[in-house]
Amino acid sequence: MNEFELIDRAFRRKLAFRHPLTSLPGGDDASVHAVPDGHELVVSTDMSLAGVHWPQDFPLQDAARRAVNAALSDLAAMGAQACWVWCCAALRDASAAELMGDGIAAALIDSDIELAGGDTVHAADNSLAVTVAGLVPKGTAMRRDAAQADDDVWLSGQLGHTAHALRQWQRADHSEAVRKAFGDVQPRLAEGMALREAGVRCCIDVSDGLLADVAHLATSSGVGMNIELSLIPAFSRLVPGQDREEAVNLMLSGGEDYALVCTAPARLRDSLSSLAVRIGQCRNGGGVNVLLNGAAWATTERGFDHFEQ
Amino acid sequence: MNEFELIDRAFRRKLAFRHPLTSLPGGDDASVHAVPDGHELVVSTDMSLAGVHWPQDFPLQDAARRAVNAALSDLAAMGAQACWVWCCAALRDASAAELMGDGIAAALIDSDIELAGGDTVHAADNSLAVTVAGLVPKGTAMRRDAAQADDDVWLSGQLGHTAHALRQWQRADHSEAVRKAFGDVQPRLAEGMALREAGVRCCIDVSDGLLADVAHLATSSGVGMNIELSLIPAFSRLVPGQDREEAVNLMLSGGEDYALVCTAPARLRDSLSSLAVRIGQCRNGGGVNVLLNGAAWATTERGFDHFEQ
Repeated sequence: MNEFELIDRAFRRKLAFRHPLTSLPGGDDASVHAVPDGHELVVSTDMSLAGVHWPQDFPLQDAARRAVNAALSDLAAMGAQACWVWCCAALRDASAAELMGDGIAAALIDSDIELAGGDTVHAADNSLAVTVAGLVPKGTAMRRDAAQADDDVWLSGQLGHTAHALRQWQRADHSEAVRKAFGDVQPRLAEGMALREAGVRCCIDVSDGLLADVAHLATSSGVGMNIELSLIPAFSRLVPGQDREEAVNLMLSGGEDYALVCTAPARLRDSLSSLAVRIGQCRNGGGVNVLLNGAAWATTERGFDHFEQ
Repeated sequence: MNEFELIDRAFRRKLAFRHPLTSLPGGDDASVHAVPDGHELVVSTDMSLAGVHWPQDFPLQDAARRAVNAALSDLAAMGAQACWVWCCAALRDASAAELMGDGIAAALIDSDIELAGGDTVHAADNSLAVTVAGLVPKGTAMRRDAAQADDDVWLSGQLGHTAHALRQWQRADHSEAVRKAFGDVQPRLAEGMALREAGVRCCIDVSDGLLADVAHLATSSGVGMNIELSLIPAFSRLVPGQDREEAVNLMLSGGEDYALVCTAPARLRDSLSSLAVRIGQCRNGGGVNVLLNGAAWATTERGFDHFEQ
């Protein structure tokens, strides 16, 4: 098994899509791409491993699709237009190559994203390293360190659903609904671009869990944040009772949902209200406070590690 | 172990170098980079795995350095100025993280190449997926498919030394000289840029072995090639006798030396004579013929697979 076989066989139909900015596609020593004047290149790389980033018994095609989409979520968080993907796959056997190739193709099909290259090796465990690249107008990338002390905090997307589905899968519920809930996560690329175009300059995707990722924003920006639980759409649907604490935990620290959390000055409220839900407020100081109807629910300085009821 | 730990600990000194075209370095969801007007982006990705791309008992620091340099060799083959590297490391333990981090740093130190991001996972086997990016003036990247039927074939670099060292290592010669010969392979970035600037438009790096890689050029370009053994510098130093056939085999098919092979029209001979050695000629037709003093030494259609004395 080698790069050519994998590309030729499993990826063939994706290689049919060539991004208009690509002047030399995969298959040479490297691929060559134009970057239009006035734009910057945005690049991220992620590694996903069987048994760590997906259960060993999770369908490999879905796992690979998920891995590509998770990597693309980093471009969404920057507000970038996704253009190119490169995949390095470690594969146990030829069947894994087929399945992983199908999953990568499934993530990219019906998109304007090109599989621009890759490499494969035969290995004891299946894994996939995905590098993604996109474009933003110069100086407009949404960063972690751009929150201001009087910014609002906004959420685009759902929280806790992926972690819940993963827990169900691990409890042997391998139903189609659970497989989809964990496997079908979508990068919020259109939403990220819309937020950037609306003027947002500070954003992160929720990969580690809301509190942990909000804490990344707060720490990088040197501000504190208050998150109001009652403003998170999922919270209002929770019924008080035995499972409520678990649900809140999933919502605040579940991770892997690839929702976007951003901050923006109050003057953007009108433009953002159709794109996201306002869930909190930046403030001077540091750390993240979780409030319920204005009263302290929990205090966390560094995300989930310090989350206590 | 996570991305932050690895970057913070083992990579810290490399992250100190920030490429002048980088507007947002690693540590955010993605890194952001300018591409100057009139230039194109060149990207390649390579995966290296313990036990496959280096012996399990080879020092991990040297193996990681080698993996980064091997990936950079693809940029050399394109004639690109190397700018950025992203590393996804699968690591058996914290010690592997330190050693691999040191090796990556060692490959990039004293260069103008930035470690722009990465990811780490805990895994049963050590592996390293390296994505590299560089720049070329628009339209000047050296490709595999640009050889013309009357071009000369040129070689920049040595052949067979790495394969020979690997064989010695596997035969339990773990001397410093052997470790260096396998581990210290250098990407010919300056040579690749010089060839491009001299007007070369067709090039490949010798990763699979001279015959296999020359065959890639021939096939991609739709030409045939004659390679004259006596013109390869190493050949003239071989003493006829018992080991000569093995040495010729290593020279023609050893691979992993990351020499550059390129083709160019005769009018470039003067400019190229200080950069490379002329070892053959393109011709109409297909396939690669190996000649010794003009007489058929062996005929190969697809590289080493078909190499017969």
